[in-house]
Amino acid sequence: MINPGSSALLTDLYQLTMLQGYFDQGMEETAVFEFFVRRLPDNRNFMMAAGLEQALVYLENLHFTEEEIDWLNKCGRFSKPFVDYLGQLRFTGDVHAMPEGTIFFPDEPILRITAPLPQAQLVESRLINILHYQTLIASKATRSVLIAPQKLLVDFGLRRAHGSEAGLFAARASYLAGFSGSATTLAAPLFDIPVYGTMAHSFIQSHDNEVTAFEHFSHAQPDNVVLLIDTYDTEAAAEKIVILAPRLKEQGISIKAVRLDSGDLASHANKVRRILDNGNLRDVGIFVSGNLDEYILQDLMASHAPIDGFGIGTKMDTSADAPYLDCAYKIQEYAGRPRRKRSEGKATWPGRKQVFRRYDENGYICEDILTTEDAPCEGKPLIDLVMHRGKPVTSPTLSESRSHAAKELASLPADFRRLESCMTYSVIVSPALEDLVDEADKSTI
Amino acid sequence: MINPGSSALLTDLYQLTMLQGYFDQGMEETAVFEFFVRRLPDNRNFMMAAGLEQALVYLENLHFTEEEIDWLNKCGRFSKPFVDYLGQLRFTGDVHAMPEGTIFFPDEPILRITAPLPQAQLVESRLINILHYQTLIASKATRSVLIAPQKLLVDFGLRRAHGSEAGLFAARASYLAGFSGSATTLAAPLFDIPVYGTMAHSFIQSHDNEVTAFEHFSHAQPDNVVLLIDTYDTEAAAEKIVILAPRLKEQGISIKAVRLDSGDLASHANKVRRILDNGNLRDVGIFVSGNLDEYILQDLMASHAPIDGFGIGTKMDTSADAPYLDCAYKIQEYAGRPRRKRSEGKATWPGRKQVFRRYDENGYICEDILTTEDAPCEGKPLIDLVMHRGKPVTSPTLSESRSHAAKELASLPADFRRLESCMTYSVIVSPALEDLVDEADKSTI
Repeated sequence: MINPGSSALLTDLYQLTMLQGYFDQGMEETAVFEFFVRRLPDNRNFMMAAGLEQALVYLENLHFTEEEIDWLNKCGRFSKPFVDYLGQLRFTGDVHAMPEGTIFFPDEPILRITAPLPQAQLVESRLINILHYQTLIASKATRSVLIAPQKLLVDFGLRRAHGSEAGLFAARASYLAGFSGSATTLAAPLFDIPVYGTMAHSFIQSHDNEVTAFEHFSHAQPDNVVLLIDTYDTEAAAEKIVILAPRLKEQGISIKAVRLDSGDLASHANKVRRILDNGNLRDVGIFVSGNLDEYILQDLMASHAPIDGFGIGTKMDTSADAPYLDCAYKIQEYAGRPRRKRSEGKATWPGRKQVFRRYDENGYICEDILTTEDAPCEGKPLIDLVMHRGKPVTSPTLSESRSHAAKELASLPADFRRLESCMTYSVIVSPALEDLVDEADKSTI
Repeated sequence: MINPGSSALLTDLYQLTMLQGYFDQGMEETAVFEFFVRRLPDNRNFMMAAGLEQALVYLENLHFTEEEIDWLNKCGRFSKPFVDYLGQLRFTGDVHAMPEGTIFFPDEPILRITAPLPQAQLVESRLINILHYQTLIASKATRSVLIAPQKLLVDFGLRRAHGSEAGLFAARASYLAGFSGSATTLAAPLFDIPVYGTMAHSFIQSHDNEVTAFEHFSHAQPDNVVLLIDTYDTEAAAEKIVILAPRLKEQGISIKAVRLDSGDLASHANKVRRILDNGNLRDVGIFVSGNLDEYILQDLMASHAPIDGFGIGTKMDTSADAPYLDCAYKIQEYAGRPRRKRSEGKATWPGRKQVFRRYDENGYICEDILTTEDAPCEGKPLIDLVMHRGKPVTSPTLSESRSHAAKELASLPADFRRLESCMTYSVIVSPALEDLVDEADKSTI
């Protein structure tokens, strides 16, 4: 059976037609490709690198199954010797990368592949597919984390994420960026992410009586009593909670929180808080959801609404205000010679690159130097070897990457923490890299 | 091993906590849920239903694997008898739906589940996840199809689609909507979709000489010679093609087309067309790509640029101008009694529904009646039984669904074919359905 997520056929057809060409010409020398973001979307001041772990798993396991080889033979596009060669193909190259959770800026590679040309070419589509989406979501999620650092933030986006993998990757990338966890159950066994969840409106609606529904749920999940109170009338339901709570208490069950999912959330939260407080339920938290994103979060935080946690779904998992990044995976060197594209508006910096980061006296990031790999430079190098000859050399846990991400966010100057675009971060291109451009342009016609 | 796309744990945790409640209370009576879109995004005049085939495959195969049951037992949230019960759970319900490719409007259900409450509840997250995304993309893709009906349209979006499944579902949904095919190789063996692909800039760049690259490629893919000519200088490359073509001709190889991927596409296409025509290459087509969507397509069509085909990627696969739909899967009936939600701004129509469609004298659609399932009504009923007791009763091929989609698009009045929002389509709520609202509200407190 073909497994869509790990299939070597999950690539653009042109990778395979090009590989036929490389095969016919014996072009197997070392190629260097780098993945980078060309420019930031509106309302983004930085990006957070994510997806490296899945990228390395993909590379390590890359191979065509028998069924896939059969299809390649039958499709009539490729020579038999070439398909036989594909049957033996494995990824044997090196990977250099920024650790997941690292803050980065346009033109800075977050991943470099150094491998025989056909291998480095074939993996393009899926590598971008993995790195682009997780980076998109981690970058989006940091915005809620920066706006509401002390609040419980839970990913609620599976249902409107773009397919199964998007739902799972969004749970992972948002947790990496600092979310508390996800509502997506499978994220727990797959990624060891805390999962959250209580009840939907249908639970209330399948009962004739809202209070009966609350009671049934409380007994079914006594350690996890969060009651959804907006199905019919939010404040009326809050009053019902005040009456119900002492009865549950006698049975040893405490209500943890109520959830609001519609209407003017700040106004309802204030009214509900008053009802709960007057009912001696000061320990019962208020959790809100419903079409939230970091912009609404900012308003709710500014209004000082008494809200303890937020479920953030669709708009995060689709990165609704910027649903894609202008990113690329480009050849930078072949057979020892630097390469670059000169297409209008899409020219690239050639060669193997390193990014050196400099910090100000308070420990905040202040400028990056984009230079060639071997050029001496002051600052902290961000790119390191993570896979050697097809085998990972480092495997940080998601939890370690999450700690790194938190440190990275802490190193952001105030201007860069805002939701709106601020001044551009200083990325300086070194003279060594400028020189390489001339060299690349001279060698191609 | 857990397969993310088909795992029963690919659901929101609250489905499982609610199921524990239903289990404890023995609430297993028949529930009816419907999936519908609440309102259209800006710049959409209709939706196209998609994803039913994958939804039915999911339902038919729904079960918890041993590994998943182990995890449920270990996670400490559920009772042992309940987890044992989950181990036996299968989907045994009925599904009614609109065929894939059907045009639909807000509040009209495109899928109805009739099943024991726990089953109908559990599947919510993944059903929405499948139907939402494919419907989003099919609806987006129709816009390019309507703008450029005679052109070759190819999905190029895998790399920036949100994960592997999004890439594959986008290939499928856009083909359903009328695209010619996709660049995503795996879409061919999985969905029997035509795939397209030739070369990337890296193929050119890995050669020192652009013409050598063209020649190598032409020999490697003699039946599929589409040459990318914008790596360095588009018009200069077109001149090189004019010189190269006769040499290839002598070897029995014809150049099918050139591809442009950057700059002002209309201007380059005009210049390149002139160069090719003057070079006696009138049969060589021009294919363009690079950040395209239906708005740019509309401009290019209006400019009468000599373009034969379009590769449309990121903006379609992410539905960039409307990256999600306001859709829902809501309980409409439990144990024979109609249900509805009354939450602010999110109230729903209760009961099992049917949509009757009426056509004008020219065969164009003119109004829909939203009514209860059994109410007599004139018009063509759009919703039919597609799964009975957990087994599919109809299985149209993708090709059949694509033909249906084409007929549906042909039935759209002119106003609804525009890219901008036009007047709202008339969906009339029947008195029978209005009455059911009162009944639903009376029976819940």
